[in-house]
Amino acid sequence: MKVHGQEYRSIWLDPKEEGLVHLINQNRLPWSFEIADLRSPGDALEAIRSMMVRGAPLIGATGALGMYLAATTAKNQKDPEAFLNDWAYRLSTARPTAINLARSVNHVFNKIRLGQSGEVSLLAKKEAELIIEEEVDACRKIGEYGLPLIRECAEKKDGKTVNILTHCNAGWLACIDYGTALAPVYLAHDAGLPVHVWVDETRPRNQGARLTAWELGQHGIPHTVITDNAGGTLMQKGQVDMVLVGSDRTTLDGYVVNKIGTYLKALAAYDNHVPFYVAIPLSSFDLNTTTNPLLLPIEEPDPEEVRMIEGWHDGEIKQVQLFPENSPALNPAFDITPPEFVTALITEKGICMPVIEETIRLFKE
Amino acid sequence: MKVHGQEYRSIWLDPKEEGLVHLINQNRLPWSFEIADLRSPGDALEAIRSMMVRGAPLIGATGALGMYLAATTAKNQKDPEAFLNDWAYRLSTARPTAINLARSVNHVFNKIRLGQSGEVSLLAKKEAELIIEEEVDACRKIGEYGLPLIRECAEKKDGKTVNILTHCNAGWLACIDYGTALAPVYLAHDAGLPVHVWVDETRPRNQGARLTAWELGQHGIPHTVITDNAGGTLMQKGQVDMVLVGSDRTTLDGYVVNKIGTYLKALAAYDNHVPFYVAIPLSSFDLNTTTNPLLLPIEEPDPEEVRMIEGWHDGEIKQVQLFPENSPALNPAFDITPPEFVTALITEKGICMPVIEETIRLFKE
Repeated sequence: MKVHGQEYRSIWLDPKEEGLVHLINQNRLPWSFEIADLRSPGDALEAIRSMMVRGAPLIGATGALGMYLAATTAKNQKDPEAFLNDWAYRLSTARPTAINLARSVNHVFNKIRLGQSGEVSLLAKKEAELIIEEEVDACRKIGEYGLPLIRECAEKKDGKTVNILTHCNAGWLACIDYGTALAPVYLAHDAGLPVHVWVDETRPRNQGARLTAWELGQHGIPHTVITDNAGGTLMQKGQVDMVLVGSDRTTLDGYVVNKIGTYLKALAAYDNHVPFYVAIPLSSFDLNTTTNPLLLPIEEPDPEEVRMIEGWHDGEIKQVQLFPENSPALNPAFDITPPEFVTALITEKGICMPVIEETIRLFKE
Repeated sequence: MKVHGQEYRSIWLDPKEEGLVHLINQNRLPWSFEIADLRSPGDALEAIRSMMVRGAPLIGATGALGMYLAATTAKNQKDPEAFLNDWAYRLSTARPTAINLARSVNHVFNKIRLGQSGEVSLLAKKEAELIIEEEVDACRKIGEYGLPLIRECAEKKDGKTVNILTHCNAGWLACIDYGTALAPVYLAHDAGLPVHVWVDETRPRNQGARLTAWELGQHGIPHTVITDNAGGTLMQKGQVDMVLVGSDRTTLDGYVVNKIGTYLKALAAYDNHVPFYVAIPLSSFDLNTTTNPLLLPIEEPDPEEVRMIEGWHDGEIKQVQLFPENSPALNPAFDITPPEFVTALITEKGICMPVIEETIRLFKE
């Protein structure tokens, strides 16, 4: 989508130079729009770990391109096979919650492990590009399936603005283009429908305030930033027409793992009869249906993320401390929204209820 | 309660000098423990407006003491009656949501308007002191009524730690002593029961992270700061035994007006069968039962409170900006939790269900 009027993706292969990948360093947004270069699988790993890239589809793409970068240098290693094997392991386990990461890395790895050493780089590139184009295509289709939900709402409201609440960032920055939760919003806006987005700031890392507000603003979509505490009262007052969120991982029976705080918004939506939609490419489903959702691995990043907050001060990104050292903190990164609070899942194969019969049907189509 | 090992109240009359009131400047906590002096009703008004004092009971006490300060200078005015009348109006309307404020100011005003001009200062002082002692007494009794709930929970858990989640600051800093929601926690801790408090940071002003964590820490009570997004998942995992919050205003039929985000925690508590208690002195009830709760006046402070956050950096309180100017923000200060999500109200006259028959009974006792 657009940045300063120019079309961008969140990650892309250099069109001229082999073994070079570019991405938007999301740690610097919205204050500074900076492009980072990846030239090695270590660079890709670091980009994932340092959260220069975030969002399940983008993390997956970065992992796949990391394997491509590993493949470009494999032939110079003493033991190319062990080298690729090692990087496949390291990249696929860089973050535990995003199911796409391991899958994308393994797709590329499986493609190249049987290839001749001379061609692994080309095979890896082709496979990574395929994964990326599939993700972009999935996001666009999610947008197309979600668009009628917004259109119907606008019609019911006689053309008055449709107010959509979103949590975290499930826009094009989290994906490669379009986004998941925000794809229907972009398509609705571009189709001339009156939309306005309530942007949860999304503590502790404030992806809503920093990224969602920025990308909506760049595209000219009306939006308002609110604290994570505010969505419930807006729903009580009828100021939210629908909730649209993404998901890092959803089980086939509809348990939605997403950024911490999503569950609270789902509860409020349910209590106020506001539809709660989860936009998710099929690649983000967890195919292990036997998992007890509450036992799913949930990251607990450094609690210092709660104590220290980053913002803009005197032309620099600065961190300030929110409470003293002698008060401990806990920082669960994700929560799980049970299917009873989910109105429907919006996927690239269509909209479905969060029940196993329906989700499995999509995979078979 | 204790600060650096010494007993304090959040506001107090100077024991020697007439017309002098001291309070803890809560805008400087937890970074700096500073006492502010009030010598005029204007000082009291400013302390309320600038949120040096916050919390319904403390705001009420500050208003009452503000009327005392007005009374001490009334006799030097051209028209003492008009002067007192003017200050009663200005103080009672300094913040709209705290029902105690208007009531406390009017109590003092009604006491002195019929007095002789020579004695208004003494009458005002006596009445303000009475209001303050009643508030302290109410908080201690709330603690005594709430204590058995914690004790029973500890017994059920075979002496394992009782985990209590609280939102915002309803501790002694919000009151004059003991607190409302935290009074049972202080009494439980002092009685040797194992308690641990999950402290919601409470965006946008972070009263939880800044004040609740500080006062619990000063008293030696184990606690952990979490983002406002995290409480739901902790409840899902069985890591919360009860929620204890205060209230700025509660209707007789049990609609609880409290800091924005309270409603979301009530929904999560309900969904996970976690008891949700609201600790509230009778003085914070809204006796107008005919009010449609969703029409209650809710403050919408400056949205810049969402955009700018205050923290500690290089030995100073600094503000950093969380998102750019071209993204608007909205800042509702309170929300309303409907009675169906409230397990019980804890008052100084006992515990009751949030229904009108029960709340009215308390007032008659």
